[in-house]
Amino acid sequence: MELLKTTIEKIQDLDQEVMDKARSRVDQLIKPPKSLGRLEDLAVQLAGIRREIKPRVDKKAIIVMAGDHGVCDEGVAPNPQVVTVLQTLNFPKGVTGVCTLAKVTNAEVVTVDIGIKEDIDPNAGVIIKKIKYGTDNMAQGAAMTRDEAIKALEVGIEVANEKIKEGVTLLGTGEMGIGNTTASTAILSVIGDIPPSEITGRGAGLSQEGILHKVKVIEKAIEVNKPNPQDGIDVLSKVGGLEIAGMAGVMLTAAANKIPVVVDGYISTAAALIAVTIEPKVKDYLIPSHASLEPGGKRGSELLGIKPMIHMDMCLGEGSGAALAFAIIEAACNMMNDMITFEEAGISI
Amino acid sequence: MELLKTTIEKIQDLDQEVMDKARSRVDQLIKPPKSLGRLEDLAVQLAGIRREIKPRVDKKAIIVMAGDHGVCDEGVAPNPQVVTVLQTLNFPKGVTGVCTLAKVTNAEVVTVDIGIKEDIDPNAGVIIKKIKYGTDNMAQGAAMTRDEAIKALEVGIEVANEKIKEGVTLLGTGEMGIGNTTASTAILSVIGDIPPSEITGRGAGLSQEGILHKVKVIEKAIEVNKPNPQDGIDVLSKVGGLEIAGMAGVMLTAAANKIPVVVDGYISTAAALIAVTIEPKVKDYLIPSHASLEPGGKRGSELLGIKPMIHMDMCLGEGSGAALAFAIIEAACNMMNDMITFEEAGISI
Repeated sequence: MELLKTTIEKIQDLDQEVMDKARSRVDQLIKPPKSLGRLEDLAVQLAGIRREIKPRVDKKAIIVMAGDHGVCDEGVAPNPQVVTVLQTLNFPKGVTGVCTLAKVTNAEVVTVDIGIKEDIDPNAGVIIKKIKYGTDNMAQGAAMTRDEAIKALEVGIEVANEKIKEGVTLLGTGEMGIGNTTASTAILSVIGDIPPSEITGRGAGLSQEGILHKVKVIEKAIEVNKPNPQDGIDVLSKVGGLEIAGMAGVMLTAAANKIPVVVDGYISTAAALIAVTIEPKVKDYLIPSHASLEPGGKRGSELLGIKPMIHMDMCLGEGSGAALAFAIIEAACNMMNDMITFEEAGISI
Repeated sequence: MELLKTTIEKIQDLDQEVMDKARSRVDQLIKPPKSLGRLEDLAVQLAGIRREIKPRVDKKAIIVMAGDHGVCDEGVAPNPQVVTVLQTLNFPKGVTGVCTLAKVTNAEVVTVDIGIKEDIDPNAGVIIKKIKYGTDNMAQGAAMTRDEAIKALEVGIEVANEKIKEGVTLLGTGEMGIGNTTASTAILSVIGDIPPSEITGRGAGLSQEGILHKVKVIEKAIEVNKPNPQDGIDVLSKVGGLEIAGMAGVMLTAAANKIPVVVDGYISTAAALIAVTIEPKVKDYLIPSHASLEPGGKRGSELLGIKPMIHMDMCLGEGSGAALAFAIIEAACNMMNDMITFEEAGISI
């Protein structure tokens, strides 16, 4: 609890003075005003986060949190739960989607077992920070205790702190967890006050019938647990997931350390909603990536006030969208550092 | 004419057999089916273009064609025409928008004077292939002769061939030319049979009044010249631009050499419409990038059957959107090369 508390206390507003100066520089660069559109806004946000007019991205990392979901017992996922552990072991081998996409900007992919149902080989290249062997079935009671939720948030904080100590200045959030679109939809439903039927999607490939069943399970989980939408930790513990907690912890840590953190897809959006409910200032440190195909993705992004940059009909998760966004973030930094102003170019028009 | 003719004759359909095999591999990769969305489609297209199931991007180049527009005499652009030459000189210095964005994937930016109004210092780092000192005013007659249009297309072919000889396997198209949204809108209007009033935009920053005037100038140019929408070279010569011709030449050359070529923004879309009208097979070699803010951008993309991947409200041109797309194309190649199949992972579910 202490680590969570001190992390939250460290989070400050963006530096408005630096942002004003950055905006002024952007407006003077050799291009028609506003012609780089949201890349300009991104650059100004990065300046405000990093407290420098010309921010640079150095080391980058995507932290992939892996955990299991007891709610799988209700038959909400098209894949068997064992896929969580099988796929988690593929991350350190560099052969999963996010690993291959992250290579474009040489971003490291860090994999964390925060609550996989099985024990993981300690030599597999996965950081083992297991809180417990998967969440409990949220349709029958809380997914985890409040204490476990706090510990899981702190796992995210610890791992992110470690990376930041190594020099990482751009973080992305990813996940692996069969069943986690169910938990994410429950979170979005509670925090956004949206009926599950409006935002429940096919996840990794449910049928139309499967989706209807998933809606009922989510409705039941919310009814059984009655999470308090104003209390992020309460929502997290009752209808969340261990990996979602870990991701929220990474986001809090990024904000506390004045580092931008990229929201990936649907699960990551749910984690961001938890982080922002815990500490609203986190919102300004979030960078969008792609528009998830999951129907709740759009609603989640709207609640967070972020607008996806990439539209590729993706819904893999893992941090795959964040990996693509890293290239655009690097581009925004390059714009600020390497483009010159009309004055510097000696052009007066 | 001979170079244009032989280039067009070399253009073949994509290799459907390779594409089928690539699709089959994509479907077996360790992810839920279709979960990488349009990144999967992109990978399959790249495979069909490159004739290999696991395509790789090696050297990349964005070719920036610079030329002036006589139609500026009609007051269609908010900036003075001299900006074309002033800004062109900034490309070899690496300080323009596209140059800074292209660094993300180490893409070379090649700048070509294909028709700037002024003479360029031969030591400025710009390839000088000037057809003439800017187009003629299309509101008063043809922008150039048919012979000049062919020669300008061949400049694009020559420069692209040179880059391909150097090992470039991914091309992007960019431009610099005050007044060229006017020419592009005329092209789109003619080829797409769309009234100019529906697609004319603010370009580099026109007022609402300026836009209305621009519509009238475009209407007049079409009326005076009566371009034949079925004849790409006719449209190009009458209401096009030298740099637009050069870009179309680059696209034809990419297709002839089985190399993907990225459509940037609005001007690049107009060039693609010319290239596709000259040889419809070019369409399959085009890769979209960003959705331009120019109102005609969407209509142009629809005509080409391409769907932008990046939505950042950009409208700079120069090849800036292509530069961002290069990272996504590299990611698609990585997916094909480095992700493994369920079988290779030893997972059977």
